[in-house]
Amino acid sequence: MIRFDSDYIEGAHPAILDALVRTNFDQTAGYGEDPYCHQARRTIAQQCNDSTLGVQFLVGGTQTNVTVIDALLRSYQGVISAESGHINVHETGAPEATGHKIIAISTNDGRLTIEQIKECFDNHWNDHAHEHTVQPGMVYLSFPAENGLIYSKAELGAISEFCRANDLYLFIDGARMGYGLQAEGCDVTLADLARLSDAFYIGGTKVGALFGEAVVFSDKEMHRSFRYAIKQHGGMLAKGRLLGIQFQELLKGGDECLYFSLARHADTQAMRIRRSFEAKGVEMWNNSPTNMQFPLLTKAQQQSLAQEFVFEYWGKYDEQRDIVRFCTSWATRTEAVDALCSAIARL
Amino acid sequence: MIRFDSDYIEGAHPAILDALVRTNFDQTAGYGEDPYCHQARRTIAQQCNDSTLGVQFLVGGTQTNVTVIDALLRSYQGVISAESGHINVHETGAPEATGHKIIAISTNDGRLTIEQIKECFDNHWNDHAHEHTVQPGMVYLSFPAENGLIYSKAELGAISEFCRANDLYLFIDGARMGYGLQAEGCDVTLADLARLSDAFYIGGTKVGALFGEAVVFSDKEMHRSFRYAIKQHGGMLAKGRLLGIQFQELLKGGDECLYFSLARHADTQAMRIRRSFEAKGVEMWNNSPTNMQFPLLTKAQQQSLAQEFVFEYWGKYDEQRDIVRFCTSWATRTEAVDALCSAIARL
Amino acid sequence: MIRFDSDYIEGAHPAILDALVRTNFDQTAGYGEDPYCHQARRTIAQQCNDSTLGVQFLVGGTQTNVTVIDALLRSYQGVISAESGHINVHETGAPEATGHKIIAISTNDGRLTIEQIKECFDNHWNDHAHEHTVQPGMVYLSFPAENGLIYSKAELGAISEFCRANDLYLFIDGARMGYGLQAEGCDVTLADLARLSDAFYIGGTKVGALFGEAVVFSDKEMHRSFRYAIKQHGGMLAKGRLLGIQFQELLKGGDECLYFSLARHADTQAMRIRRSFEAKGVEMWNNSPTNMQFPLLTKAQQQSLAQEFVFEYWGKYDEQRDIVRFCTSWATRTEAVDALCSAIARL
Amino acid sequence: MIRFDSDYIEGAHPAILDALVRTNFDQTAGYGEDPYCHQARRTIAQQCNDSTLGVQFLVGGTQTNVTVIDALLRSYQGVISAESGHINVHETGAPEATGHKIIAISTNDGRLTIEQIKECFDNHWNDHAHEHTVQPGMVYLSFPAENGLIYSKAELGAISEFCRANDLYLFIDGARMGYGLQAEGCDVTLADLARLSDAFYIGGTKVGALFGEAVVFSDKEMHRSFRYAIKQHGGMLAKGRLLGIQFQELLKGGDECLYFSLARHADTQAMRIRRSFEAKGVEMWNNSPTNMQFPLLTKAQQQSLAQEFVFEYWGKYDEQRDIVRFCTSWATRTEAVDALCSAIARL
Repeated sequence: MIRFDSDYIEGAHPAILDALVRTNFDQTAGYGEDPYCHQARRTIAQQCNDSTLGVQFLVGGTQTNVTVIDALLRSYQGVISAESGHINVHETGAPEATGHKIIAISTNDGRLTIEQIKECFDNHWNDHAHEHTVQPGMVYLSFPAENGLIYSKAELGAISEFCRANDLYLFIDGARMGYGLQAEGCDVTLADLARLSDAFYIGGTKVGALFGEAVVFSDKEMHRSFRYAIKQHGGMLAKGRLLGIQFQELLKGGDECLYFSLARHADTQAMRIRRSFEAKGVEMWNNSPTNMQFPLLTKAQQQSLAQEFVFEYWGKYDEQRDIVRFCTSWATRTEAVDALCSAIARL
Repeated sequence: MIRFDSDYIEGAHPAILDALVRTNFDQTAGYGEDPYCHQARRTIAQQCNDSTLGVQFLVGGTQTNVTVIDALLRSYQGVISAESGHINVHETGAPEATGHKIIAISTNDGRLTIEQIKECFDNHWNDHAHEHTVQPGMVYLSFPAENGLIYSKAELGAISEFCRANDLYLFIDGARMGYGLQAEGCDVTLADLARLSDAFYIGGTKVGALFGEAVVFSDKEMHRSFRYAIKQHGGMLAKGRLLGIQFQELLKGGDECLYFSLARHADTQAMRIRRSFEAKGVEMWNNSPTNMQFPLLTKAQQQSLAQEFVFEYWGKYDEQRDIVRFCTSWATRTEAVDALCSAIARL
Repeated sequence: MIRFDSDYIEGAHPAILDALVRTNFDQTAGYGEDPYCHQARRTIAQQCNDSTLGVQFLVGGTQTNVTVIDALLRSYQGVISAESGHINVHETGAPEATGHKIIAISTNDGRLTIEQIKECFDNHWNDHAHEHTVQPGMVYLSFPAENGLIYSKAELGAISEFCRANDLYLFIDGARMGYGLQAEGCDVTLADLARLSDAFYIGGTKVGALFGEAVVFSDKEMHRSFRYAIKQHGGMLAKGRLLGIQFQELLKGGDECLYFSLARHADTQAMRIRRSFEAKGVEMWNNSPTNMQFPLLTKAQQQSLAQEFVFEYWGKYDEQRDIVRFCTSWATRTEAVDALCSAIARL
Repeated sequence: MIRFDSDYIEGAHPAILDALVRTNFDQTAGYGEDPYCHQARRTIAQQCNDSTLGVQFLVGGTQTNVTVIDALLRSYQGVISAESGHINVHETGAPEATGHKIIAISTNDGRLTIEQIKECFDNHWNDHAHEHTVQPGMVYLSFPAENGLIYSKAELGAISEFCRANDLYLFIDGARMGYGLQAEGCDVTLADLARLSDAFYIGGTKVGALFGEAVVFSDKEMHRSFRYAIKQHGGMLAKGRLLGIQFQELLKGGDECLYFSLARHADTQAMRIRRSFEAKGVEMWNNSPTNMQFPLLTKAQQQSLAQEFVFEYWGKYDEQRDIVRFCTSWATRTEAVDALCSAIARL
């Protein structure tokens, strides 16, 4: 069986394993205060065109989301998020476990619009009894969104402007950041994200690393205290250098860095899958340009493909069809996609 | 400089790196539901002589402590711990951040005694206004303790019996478990710990792994729901197999497993350092039989050793001397200890 | 101006003030361990036909909801609630601040159905990755609901049966309990609620008391520890007797108790308002039989009534009409309703 | 039996009950947004000589402590408190339940000194691994302290200066505020407390009210959001006016206000008890000038007094004697103290 069910089914890119083996017996300080982490911080700040940015490394996505949310918000504040946002649906109530309500907005396409954010915000403050509902303190969005769609620079700019005018933090979940940045038609860069958000992260786990997420932030209070929040939330890795070593391998080299080329590979393979479905007349659920593709398949079509491939059921679409998800990743072999495209053609 | 300041300054034992490289492109399910994790679970249960035990893997120690405490306790319960317990002094208030007060007991030697636990418990329940203080729900202890000392089987047995008779969970922090189990004079085994506690963990981070802690538990409620707690606390690694692979390498082989031999090596080297200090007439702070040794050194002695070695200031002892800590680990080279012993002899 | 905007705009029924004045200089123990509270506990248990029930008194509704939820649930569990449930919309994220996510269900009429609860529960446990979403631990419902509707005994019985079969607590918010129990067509009694739920409360604040909510529970763990939860959540009143004295005044006398007659009065007045609107041809939003009535009024109609009366805007209904709320209470004067009905007739 | 075991064993001063009866049928807005609360806010601000101060009302002490702590602190911050501080010993872990560790300092006499605060603070920030311990964010002290002692204006001034220079909030628990302010030798005023602290409260529950604590604050963020914190912590009373009415009765009248005269009465009676013990040669535990007095009594002496009086065991002092507590209050009758003094003379 060939797996297309997620983007974390293999280990890491060999260059990363090599780097870990090569540095294995170096003796360094712990907790991310080692030379590898410091180097990776500089590399990431350069990629973001801003040497004043803070960079800290955590192990996984839920941990990162929760740590940033809890570090930035006051106890009585909540997070505005798409109803389909990862923090709202697939984190076992982790943000709430730190005390923060999610103010979930039902969206058209899994992405928050500036109009929706404004309406939600205005509804809160216009209410004469606003203190009876949680105070909005942050806008959370995922880039790309949980359904593979991305935001344009103009869309992010409008959201950022509104947030800054209204004392809302803007936090961008980048668990699949690379696949978004390298997608066809994406006009957003790391530097844009650093400029427009208060905090965002560059996901390593799903884009070539064994594990790891690099949080980038400009907020003054986070500069002073984010490491407390990391430690308190159990996210400070004793051998923190493992994160620095991996991110240095991934992000060094500017536009030619491994992170971008791995992501581009996955997006290219995903578009091959998309075009195969379209050629077969299979309707796609949305216009995702990233590594997740969502064809609408009948049960018979699913059974046929399931003989050779693993993919994920995403939800019921109509009486005839379900939404299913095919994921590529940095590790997806071209031959595996060849086989899938052939099978699609035979449907 | 040769570092003796902690036991997490190198990467992992080469056998572990080899295993990670070897399995790198296998495709598996995520979140610890893969064959490697299942195999490691069986291996650990065998080492504990009880196939009904639950085993789950987390990344780090603070994360593990907090997740177990919060999974087991009711919201109104607290944890009885030595004042010097890791959860009380070096975790940035992480247990409290999950809502649980630490009922800290001042100890003679960093280890809780059954008499102290009883007194603390009785003081609570004898109090006519007991509901004005937090309800004791758990006893937490570290094996070995934060100062390197270990508990005997009889001591643990008495504590366990009291806990079971009084609805208290017994949770044992095993961040340095191996170094305790392999210490001279230790009469405790993994099977004893599994039998006497409700939950304990086998620390990998400090004993040969890149990272990882294996929690072993018998509690029925944890069997059902501990994975929820892991996810909620951000501790569920997407590529969970990285933990299974490492623990399988460490624990396979019964009494001859890598975990035990690495720990034995560190303890042996630590005892060489101890004997060098004693031979020089330097008093030791305590009788630690494990990988941490605490000589009482004058400032001049510290400066002399600091020319070649890194070690840790632990606290002031008297007007002349400080307590300092020397740590060995699975990775400590015999030649490094040779050099240290020579330097000690020259003091 | 005559206020119909809520049911907590006056103080307390004079019999309660008399009792407070009469007992003012008695010396008693604090924190609800006094003879008045003990007597009120027995009175309430008798009203519920079960002398084994636990009864504890708290000051307000949000406090009570949060304390019960946090006392009963494990840290990784959430609460199934109607999206319009008070805990989800008007408590400033208080349940989440104790760590528990609300699993909000969109309802047809503000009331949970057994089918919706089943579907929500099954979706969770059928999901192969259930531990990635919060574990359902409780069903919360309000009696009457936030829109004035009530549940029948059969509806509550079915929900209760499902909860007991599936390890879910059933907790009933009774902030307006009296108005529900005394409504036309209600076939539910206090004894039914005690039998069918794990915990519910009898709201005093909105039904004749200065303040106070009496929590009734059968759960064994709550018997042992609920007072810890009350104290920890800041809900243990030093002069706890103030609550016992008030509830004894309200509930003594069996079916003829003050609590029921005050509620009946409010419901009767509310039905007079309802019939006035209906006589005028004004459509009502729903069939509430309790003290809250929701006519659909044009802006012109609202302006007309607002010259003499205060009422509450509840939401937009269609292009022409808004939903507005008129509340009666134990303190509503018949003459005030006379005046309102005349004004309605003049619309 | 005559009770001297606490200061909350009676109801309220008759003037307060009268005011509640008098206003009972007035119709007002809820949640502390009524004219009575606004008036009481102005009265308190006048007593504090600063019209820009914020004033909000809560029901009880634990609730108030927790709400202020959680409103002011960041999630990774802790509270510096005397080990004997009320929040550390008698609140069932309520501050920790909101996520904040208490950094407990062992004191000589139950009062924090500026030297101890400095040492604690410096130890944290000097530590090279400070982020491994909780970040100090606030100094909490009680005025008077839990053992009846008070701070001088100079002592509070020095603590305040240090806090402001080091980004620490200063929060003063005033559950027994009146008894401190009116004590012989006290040189502190409400205006001093408002000037020197970021937040403090005027305790009503123990000084004449049925219940209620008035929080006074200057912090800008609290002005904007403290009411959210109150609601979220379940402390926003629906009939908030009950608090405004009581505090207006207590604090109106400047230096001649009821609050001060009631407190002075209690202190005077307490000093009579103190002098009776001293005349009898009974040693006192400390020099408390407030309403709590702590003689050191033998078991025989305790048994003798316990025939007529209720008092509280406070702890063992030496082989012969225990510390016991006698409390007076606003409601203590002179004749009751006469009787007690006679009994003491007969010991």
